[in-house]
Amino acid sequence: MKLDYQKITSKVYADIIAKENHGKVPDYIPELACIDENKFGVNFTDLKHNSFGCGDSEEKFSIQSISKVFALSFVYEKLEEKLWERVDVEPSGSAFNSLIQLEADNGIPRNPFINAGALVICDILLEICNNPKEELLSFIRNLTEDEEIFFNEKVASSEMQNSFRNAAMCNFMKSFGNIKNKPDSVIELYCHLCSIEMTCKQLSKSFLYLANEGKKPSGGMQILSSSKAKRINAILLTCGFYDESGEFSFLVGLPGKSGVGGGIIAIYPQHYCITVWSPKLNEKGNSYRGMKFLEEFTTLTGESIF
Amino acid sequence: MKLDYQKITSKVYADIIAKENHGKVPDYIPELACIDENKFGVNFTDLKHNSFGCGDSEEKFSIQSISKVFALSFVYEKLEEKLWERVDVEPSGSAFNSLIQLEADNGIPRNPFINAGALVICDILLEICNNPKEELLSFIRNLTEDEEIFFNEKVASSEMQNSFRNAAMCNFMKSFGNIKNKPDSVIELYCHLCSIEMTCKQLSKSFLYLANEGKKPSGGMQILSSSKAKRINAILLTCGFYDESGEFSFLVGLPGKSGVGGGIIAIYPQHYCITVWSPKLNEKGNSYRGMKFLEEFTTLTGESIF
Amino acid sequence: MKLDYQKITSKVYADIIAKENHGKVPDYIPELACIDENKFGVNFTDLKHNSFGCGDSEEKFSIQSISKVFALSFVYEKLEEKLWERVDVEPSGSAFNSLIQLEADNGIPRNPFINAGALVICDILLEICNNPKEELLSFIRNLTEDEEIFFNEKVASSEMQNSFRNAAMCNFMKSFGNIKNKPDSVIELYCHLCSIEMTCKQLSKSFLYLANEGKKPSGGMQILSSSKAKRINAILLTCGFYDESGEFSFLVGLPGKSGVGGGIIAIYPQHYCITVWSPKLNEKGNSYRGMKFLEEFTTLTGESIF
Amino acid sequence: MKLDYQKITSKVYADIIAKENHGKVPDYIPELACIDENKFGVNFTDLKHNSFGCGDSEEKFSIQSISKVFALSFVYEKLEEKLWERVDVEPSGSAFNSLIQLEADNGIPRNPFINAGALVICDILLEICNNPKEELLSFIRNLTEDEEIFFNEKVASSEMQNSFRNAAMCNFMKSFGNIKNKPDSVIELYCHLCSIEMTCKQLSKSFLYLANEGKKPSGGMQILSSSKAKRINAILLTCGFYDESGEFSFLVGLPGKSGVGGGIIAIYPQHYCITVWSPKLNEKGNSYRGMKFLEEFTTLTGESIF
Repeated sequence: MKLDYQKITSKVYADIIAKENHGKVPDYIPELACIDENKFGVNFTDLKHNSFGCGDSEEKFSIQSISKVFALSFVYEKLEEKLWERVDVEPSGSAFNSLIQLEADNGIPRNPFINAGALVICDILLEICNNPKEELLSFIRNLTEDEEIFFNEKVASSEMQNSFRNAAMCNFMKSFGNIKNKPDSVIELYCHLCSIEMTCKQLSKSFLYLANEGKKPSGGMQILSSSKAKRINAILLTCGFYDESGEFSFLVGLPGKSGVGGGIIAIYPQHYCITVWSPKLNEKGNSYRGMKFLEEFTTLTGESIF
Repeated sequence: MKLDYQKITSKVYADIIAKENHGKVPDYIPELACIDENKFGVNFTDLKHNSFGCGDSEEKFSIQSISKVFALSFVYEKLEEKLWERVDVEPSGSAFNSLIQLEADNGIPRNPFINAGALVICDILLEICNNPKEELLSFIRNLTEDEEIFFNEKVASSEMQNSFRNAAMCNFMKSFGNIKNKPDSVIELYCHLCSIEMTCKQLSKSFLYLANEGKKPSGGMQILSSSKAKRINAILLTCGFYDESGEFSFLVGLPGKSGVGGGIIAIYPQHYCITVWSPKLNEKGNSYRGMKFLEEFTTLTGESIF
Repeated sequence: MKLDYQKITSKVYADIIAKENHGKVPDYIPELACIDENKFGVNFTDLKHNSFGCGDSEEKFSIQSISKVFALSFVYEKLEEKLWERVDVEPSGSAFNSLIQLEADNGIPRNPFINAGALVICDILLEICNNPKEELLSFIRNLTEDEEIFFNEKVASSEMQNSFRNAAMCNFMKSFGNIKNKPDSVIELYCHLCSIEMTCKQLSKSFLYLANEGKKPSGGMQILSSSKAKRINAILLTCGFYDESGEFSFLVGLPGKSGVGGGIIAIYPQHYCITVWSPKLNEKGNSYRGMKFLEEFTTLTGESIF
Repeated sequence: MKLDYQKITSKVYADIIAKENHGKVPDYIPELACIDENKFGVNFTDLKHNSFGCGDSEEKFSIQSISKVFALSFVYEKLEEKLWERVDVEPSGSAFNSLIQLEADNGIPRNPFINAGALVICDILLEICNNPKEELLSFIRNLTEDEEIFFNEKVASSEMQNSFRNAAMCNFMKSFGNIKNKPDSVIELYCHLCSIEMTCKQLSKSFLYLANEGKKPSGGMQILSSSKAKRINAILLTCGFYDESGEFSFLVGLPGKSGVGGGIIAIYPQHYCITVWSPKLNEKGNSYRGMKFLEEFTTLTGESIF
């Protein structure tokens, strides 16, 4: 029996919006704190070019850490497996431990999706690109087939002014030799990546290559080798949701990534990408409604990688 | 194109046995240390009752931590989601931190596959069973359709005499109220579970319910609800290989579980279970040849959950 | 100008008793929780046999961890410097870290006054004594010149039933080979030592050997070599008050030791020992009034080792 | 009987120089690594203006962390007890934990002698001084009665280029609000303080105020109140030697401070200050010969604060 994804999506959207919206919008980035906290959008896009949305699915929001998946894909394709000399692929256990673990592991971050790991990826971008900001933006625009994707300079600048903990990690890794550029440059690039703004619809489309063995479904361009695409999915599953990665794997069962802007992308390999956006975050820093939506969605479809 | 699993299995087996056998047999359990370290067996069994093996696939070995998957399945079906009040589903980050994390998390272990978590599962078995050892053995015999599965009392007793670290964790959790029985009884049961002996062939058959949405393929008995079977697979993926869970997910891409006896089971949902046994362990405590075999096997089949 | 210690003691006693009594009596040992929380006693005894008290200075209370100083003195004199192969002399930094540090330091406790260290001392007592309980009691009776010093069996038994965290540490150290006897025997002895009951007057007298280069002032018996007595004072100063050792050194400036029964002893080398008892404990587990009393006392005398 | 300190000093100097010189010169600051590792000087100066030295006692060396005692004294006298809102007075337990503890303690360093604490002191200097470098140099010149005390700009600059770990801590504390100035300015000042060069003779003289209840012996100027001088001695005793503070207290029994330049100062309150310099450091980062010298010296004099 074929599932009617549009009907399921609409039903779950209606269910979730009818319930109380818990959690809170993070306040450590002033530019993000002023968002309307009841924004709620969903987009579903599959490999056959079906795409539909609910709610605020075509409104741009700050994708924040979701951009780490783009940055990793870009760098992984260039460095191949040599990349893993500088960053590992293990879950971090807990935010609480991140600096301890950097010490225990001689400056090698646990995975590319914790901040320390993403800083190393940014450091590599600075090494291999002439103009990393523009090249990464081009990469994402190509995936999305949409030129209208930009950094939000106000957000980037707001984050740079509140980046002392990232500066701590960056300097700490540099003391172990695992940051090659100036910490300030690394953080400047990192804050720009976090500031990228996209809609749910753009995000779902852009990430289809991870559902499609590394190929863009329209046009067929190979973004990453099939093996690399699968490996990124594997890291998303074990590390995509900070301390809640196990919970997301347990409840939703799809590779995915969240950002503190309230966005979550989830990938069902061979089939589709689904994006949810709702700004209020649960205690672990993941979108409250985003988690609820995806849990109910996979319960109704019965589809997960397990 | 249909894959010839038997041919692939034989080829990979031949490849791996031709290479040097690294790692070492653990020496902290005297009864296990005297194993022939070049034993090497593989068994593949699918949902259509195809089963074939290579090497020592019908020789019994100590399944050790693989038994934690049976114990979890048994307890989960009885306690339903209430189980997760006493144990979490998050990766532990690192062996090194286990006692810290118990402290930070008020005696709630990170997941049911680290020792602390399995001790809690044993504590629950003592609460809900009249005769936990016999009931668990029956559960496994039913899954395997084979009465010839036993504890090795010598191994159990050898482990009990070297269980001070487990006793430390058990007493520590009891100080938080998360162990209800006497620590000595919990450890006695735990050491017995670890001492179960099975062959690769028995293991592959017994775990088919996790590839089959909770149902035994022969007879169709529902061991666990479909949702619970998938959730156990999710935990296996994020937590089945200690500090190397991310690496296994990355390289192999299947839910699985290892034991210090050198066994590894891996599950391809909807399809099959494959078991490897080779006693020499790598630095993270997982079978050296087992890991190599499964990495090459999934590379050749191109099959993973991602 | 000669100080009038009796006048100062009375004045400080009156000052402190006039102020509110903060903190709380610990409730984890039921037998201790029923103490009258307004008990307050002080005794000052010097090397010239002057002794005077205020308040409940001749009422017995549970000396708890203060007994660790007796146990250390007893064992140190027998093992000489070889003792330090099994326990270190460094401050522990923080209660929170104790289990981590045992792991990092291969089962060697930071110092003899944290629980882990005192458990090792008890283990040594079991090795070197035929009847450790009686021999330790004799040692204390001799120091005090008073046969009326006993264990409180009810308190000992109450502690044994709440000793899971100590059992955790004891088993953990045994896994590193730093406990030689059965953990249960070590804990049984440890809980007995904690249960010893003495008065402020008895305590001040008994500890004069630490103010007198290791000699009992009456009779002149050498309990410990002069060098060892000084070294115990040094450890008391850096480690006698758990996480508040630095604070006590800073505010009071004398070697001392506290117990969760509300007692504190402080030693002014070459001069005297002063004991305070008041059951309500501050957040760090040290007697609230005891700390306040000694801070004001040394402020008025102007005497400290610095 | 009066001790002949000069004779004892000469004898111990001869004993130590006759034995092998263990340890190694630290190599992380290139400018310091080129020192002649067999330099060895001692100076003894008492409150009655007796002063004598052995060996290289009038050769300047990099005092490194010893300058933290000057900086603390300077700041403590100005801020009074309010200072302790920003830094604690507890031993740190272990170098290994410093970043964990900053996290657990919300950015408040354990004490003013670990790097994190000294960075906070430098931050305060930047707040309260117009020209902190010159004012601190004046403070030290006044104590020493010698204008010939300078920063070594080459050393300061060498340290600044290797300060990533300090930058990590500084940014981390700033994320908690416990650094008010720019991290770069704090580190620039910190590295200058470390680079001060003095001789053993100058150091002994300069620190007499800590042996003299806060007063300079010549002239009688009150540098610090008596209570504050004693409290600094108390912190020196519990925290002056990193992870070896307990050991120094145990073996030597005097308040003191070491620097990675190989210097150690030790204070015997009411009497004298003794300084040793020998560049090779033991495993804990303290001068190998310095520790040995002071251990033997206090054994022969029989003098300690205990």
